[in-house]
Amino acid sequence: MVERHALPSSVGTRLVTVASGRRLRAENGGKRPHFGSESGSRMCELARAQRGSRFQERPAVAMVPDPFQIFPVTGGRRYSEVQIDMNSTAFKPIHPPVRTLMGPGPSDIHPSVLAAMAAPTVGHLDPYFLQIMDEVQTMLRQVFQTDNQMTMAISGTGSAGMEACVVNLIEPGDKMIACQNGVFGGRMADVAGRAGADVTKLERPFGEVFSTEDIAKAVDQHKPKVVGIVHAETSTGALQPLEEISKVVHDAGALLLVDCVTSLAGLPVEIDKLNIDAAYSGSQKCLSCPPGLAPVTFSPKALGVMDARKTKVASWYLDISMLRNYWGGDRAYHHTAPINMNYGLHQALRLVLEEGLDARFARHRLHHEALKAGLEAMGIGYSVANAEHSLPMLNSVLIPDGVDDAGVRKQLLNEFGIEIGGGLGPMKGKTWRIGLMGDAAQKPNVLLFLAALEQCLATQGKAAGAGAGVAAANDRYLKA
Amino acid sequence: MVERHALPSSVGTRLVTVASGRRLRAENGGKRPHFGSESGSRMCELARAQRGSRFQERPAVAMVPDPFQIFPVTGGRRYSEVQIDMNSTAFKPIHPPVRTLMGPGPSDIHPSVLAAMAAPTVGHLDPYFLQIMDEVQTMLRQVFQTDNQMTMAISGTGSAGMEACVVNLIEPGDKMIACQNGVFGGRMADVAGRAGADVTKLERPFGEVFSTEDIAKAVDQHKPKVVGIVHAETSTGALQPLEEISKVVHDAGALLLVDCVTSLAGLPVEIDKLNIDAAYSGSQKCLSCPPGLAPVTFSPKALGVMDARKTKVASWYLDISMLRNYWGGDRAYHHTAPINMNYGLHQALRLVLEEGLDARFARHRLHHEALKAGLEAMGIGYSVANAEHSLPMLNSVLIPDGVDDAGVRKQLLNEFGIEIGGGLGPMKGKTWRIGLMGDAAQKPNVLLFLAALEQCLATQGKAAGAGAGVAAANDRYLKA
Repeated sequence: MVERHALPSSVGTRLVTVASGRRLRAENGGKRPHFGSESGSRMCELARAQRGSRFQERPAVAMVPDPFQIFPVTGGRRYSEVQIDMNSTAFKPIHPPVRTLMGPGPSDIHPSVLAAMAAPTVGHLDPYFLQIMDEVQTMLRQVFQTDNQMTMAISGTGSAGMEACVVNLIEPGDKMIACQNGVFGGRMADVAGRAGADVTKLERPFGEVFSTEDIAKAVDQHKPKVVGIVHAETSTGALQPLEEISKVVHDAGALLLVDCVTSLAGLPVEIDKLNIDAAYSGSQKCLSCPPGLAPVTFSPKALGVMDARKTKVASWYLDISMLRNYWGGDRAYHHTAPINMNYGLHQALRLVLEEGLDARFARHRLHHEALKAGLEAMGIGYSVANAEHSLPMLNSVLIPDGVDDAGVRKQLLNEFGIEIGGGLGPMKGKTWRIGLMGDAAQKPNVLLFLAALEQCLATQGKAAGAGAGVAAANDRYLKA
Repeated sequence: MVERHALPSSVGTRLVTVASGRRLRAENGGKRPHFGSESGSRMCELARAQRGSRFQERPAVAMVPDPFQIFPVTGGRRYSEVQIDMNSTAFKPIHPPVRTLMGPGPSDIHPSVLAAMAAPTVGHLDPYFLQIMDEVQTMLRQVFQTDNQMTMAISGTGSAGMEACVVNLIEPGDKMIACQNGVFGGRMADVAGRAGADVTKLERPFGEVFSTEDIAKAVDQHKPKVVGIVHAETSTGALQPLEEISKVVHDAGALLLVDCVTSLAGLPVEIDKLNIDAAYSGSQKCLSCPPGLAPVTFSPKALGVMDARKTKVASWYLDISMLRNYWGGDRAYHHTAPINMNYGLHQALRLVLEEGLDARFARHRLHHEALKAGLEAMGIGYSVANAEHSLPMLNSVLIPDGVDDAGVRKQLLNEFGIEIGGGLGPMKGKTWRIGLMGDAAQKPNVLLFLAALEQCLATQGKAAGAGAGVAAANDRYLKA
């Protein structure tokens, strides 16, 4: 059966086309259609009775106020010549399971952000999109706590943001120190090496952080152009203090490059106050947007260093000198920006700023403390030895002896819809990574996770204090 | 006023939360809420009367069948602790104008693709997402007409696809011929130079194509490792024949790299038949998906060349040797793939294959012919001299003498919602680029555009045969 759908244009409203019961019955082998709720079903019945339509109900259209602005998933289109064979044997349409995303990212996403992703696409030089770019930049500056003009979203994921920062600051032969106390510090060293940097890897064991003395000694010895360090190491859950290090790096005349992928919008990332020259993040962590964009910011000093380059940036796609002309005043075409991803980021940033940075940081801290209290009551400890250096949004905990890592994660996913992460690199099989990032940082998630984990451990015969985890978390909440 | 929204979980259904009339009135200064349609309004009234609820209507939930599967824009979420100040002075939420996208991309997008973009995000290693990756790969192979195992979507836009192909095939010092007869051939030369290639630019004037003899002579003289050429030059509208050239390139022992950004899914791109070693495209042209992904394919021979590299690929983010482990059997974490973009591409590919490649190519051809007949009746000619080399999906036409380029494009956008492109590079101010890509290639668009253009030209006092364009296009359709 081939259907041709002609959809009415509808701007700024949400439109539901309800297939008629008759048609659904025909396709379901004569069974009545199942409507998701009694009242929804009744509304359809009422409307059907009233209109007597045989093949199509009228769409239900409602104005929904900001910020639950919901888009026409029609995209405002009138018509399509694409003919659909409803009996095709092609792959099934997208229909994902609903997960509670408590891993190392992507994190849970607010419904209004997903709705923004489905807004009608406009051109990358459309006056409307140029305005959205301006607004995204303004909001990113607020979240990065910076006045840096060159603050924008790279059209790729967090690792593209890392690469953008490194390849623009580094010319072949330049000295760079990459601080490696986890997977992502190691990745930065790899990226720098490919860009032709003379890389010195400064190493600390996974889960530890660098002291000011470590950095002071290294910059004194190597006289680097750039020092790269990870603020929130997603692979280990360690939080790197930056204030003293920034002074030491700048006293040595170097630039400070910081990985804020996991910290941005969950912990203070004070670019200007800390005098950070370049930083990158990802959309899918504490910003709670789907993955696909990498916020970056560059200080005027970093831009000056780029302006003084003798060689072209190794990557055309990530060349900031050209991206500045697209994201800056000239609006010169560079590449076709991911329009709908930027819609999503725009809405995610609105939510961050509506909540307020301080409130958001406090929320991440509260739920981390409740989770930690619960886990400790169940005898589960953190892999970061010094509690001061534990990230609130990424809880890296030691898997209890004798517990099957993959078995627990699989059970959490299949029986509770909860995703947590396993350990990366040398932590594989030794740690779980429990994210409380952005929208995922909420009471229901903490309590549900602790309750579900208790069941998973009991399934493996490793019961840990019946109810103790939930009780301890509740205790923390009651003191809040 | 601060609202806290608790949303019921809902999988595979679409959910509309209708704010109550009472609340909307309160926020609208006492005015009645405006509902988008009489029947929608009536349904709300009926439900309201029945339930007597004061502050919130029940959600209307309906099952919508494939392929108009519509997602819970709630993402299945139960709750959010993010509090929204409804009186905030922050930027307005995303609410784009509805455009008819007839420029050089992005193209018009099918409603079901936008709906897929809003489906609940899952993790990048979730079993569901791994299945979606497999299916995207399978469908991309069909569209590229190849058995190449290494066929996937790069997590960036088309230019990232270009860069991925070049940097993986090229090692510093390798010889490459970049064929430049437009902006994108020139971009390929730039990318190759940054990757350290010894680049020979083979040039033809904008709007012309390369002859087999041109290429034969160049490969004979330069003995390159790679020859890069653009199949469908988006900046000029020229279609490059490839069959003979492929033979010449391979006879000389070189690899053939082809830019299919604008041709894929609108014209045959026969990777295996033409023996193309590497090719890249973009999601936002004839695939009619939002921008953000770059389909690429590599032949076993190209992979062999990569396996034999002596140096690391300049880009970590685009390193195919690592991407193979994520998109291939091992599923080793590389970067966090843009989940929702891949949902969109999945649905876009489903529509391409449901329509059928041959039918899709014929559709692009038909509407091109109708548009061309209309434009010629209005005295507007194509900038590609040889009609055989005119792209059907990208119509590059000469702006009539004395007509204000920007004025016409602005009027089309503001008064008709139609986006077309201006000329790029040396064509700036001389050509318009009218896209009939993917979903944009349809009768209503062709007729509306011709009618609107007639009005725009008349506004400038350059009237061109009243009704002649529409009549000629209709004549072509009536002969179809």
